[in-house]
Amino acid sequence: MAAGADDRDAHLREATLSSREAYRGPFLQVRHDVARLPDGSEASREYIVHPGAVMIVPLLDDGRLVVERQWRYPHHRAFVEFPAGKLDPGEDVFACAVRELAEETGYRAREWARAGVLHNAISYSDEGIEIWFARGLSPGERRLDAGEFLDVQITTLAELEAAAARGELTDAKTLIGMLWLTHSLAGRWPLRWRDTPRALAGA
Amino acid sequence: MAAGADDRDAHLREATLSSREAYRGPFLQVRHDVARLPDGSEASREYIVHPGAVMIVPLLDDGRLVVERQWRYPHHRAFVEFPAGKLDPGEDVFACAVRELAEETGYRAREWARAGVLHNAISYSDEGIEIWFARGLSPGERRLDAGEFLDVQITTLAELEAAAARGELTDAKTLIGMLWLTHSLAGRWPLRWRDTPRALAGA
Repeated sequence: MAAGADDRDAHLREATLSSREAYRGPFLQVRHDVARLPDGSEASREYIVHPGAVMIVPLLDDGRLVVERQWRYPHHRAFVEFPAGKLDPGEDVFACAVRELAEETGYRAREWARAGVLHNAISYSDEGIEIWFARGLSPGERRLDAGEFLDVQITTLAELEAAAARGELTDAKTLIGMLWLTHSLAGRWPLRWRDTPRALAGA
Repeated sequence: MAAGADDRDAHLREATLSSREAYRGPFLQVRHDVARLPDGSEASREYIVHPGAVMIVPLLDDGRLVVERQWRYPHHRAFVEFPAGKLDPGEDVFACAVRELAEETGYRAREWARAGVLHNAISYSDEGIEIWFARGLSPGERRLDAGEFLDVQITTLAELEAAAARGELTDAKTLIGMLWLTHSLAGRWPLRWRDTPRALAGA
């Protein structure tokens, strides 16, 4: 398997001996497993179980980008970020990308491309954030969830890079969206664009 | 404040009404707060309390990079990553960077530069990962913690970029280290190098 769980990792592998739910709150679930380490010893492994998420890099026709400014409670400050959201139970990733972009920004896209996935907290969460690009954007009404407050802003890659260099843009998924955008604009990490499926176009 | 908790965010701000520890395991701590939202309503905010971490981008004199291949239990596979580790209680960030590089890879650096910080799970963790660069590397003995197993590998930025484009390199901090390296090599995100402090050189 390309992602790495192959024979060359046999000397690193940790096998699950037991697994239990250690905590379940309104938002977070923690599991506490016991694993057998490569030397035969045992160790606790504690981690967040996450449904997965999608981030969207929304490209306007003039090359500018749509970003959000949103309060992030654990840090007690606002962050500049690309639109993103968690998968609903059973939700298709593409459908989630279309839904989150529309709900949070009002924009609908004519075309989409899946770039890849990022894993943001590999030592203590199984979260993966799918990285999607959207273009052919049309503005529309947004539909924020109750209790959701965020500003939609139009910016450029150069402005985001300057903010990152100044230490003002620190959100991991957004920085990685900028990395994907830089390499895809240069043709090094090509994107495969496809039309928005008819079934999702009304989202 | 440059990072964003300023007056322009008053309409986004969430104020803490109460805060309690909801879970404490051997590794993870969860807090459950009640916050007042901008419209006056109340909402639960649940998040991991994390001591913070440091990632090191280790540059060999020939331009190659030192990375690790390590099993990450929540994903049941190995990841290619830059060296990183959590801050010990009360530990200075610079000291942590020097310690983690030496313990995990055996390398000691003549010079260091702090690039910035990344926030990897802003909706549910207060973790920040400091991004440091190290150069003038000398190999030496590593001192892994008990139960710690990882391979040290030498690679290039081009190889890491190819692995990311193929979907094989997905660790967020490592992708962001590559972003910083790309921009600093191009002179756009300059690094301020300093010698390893004498007090840390023996670490």
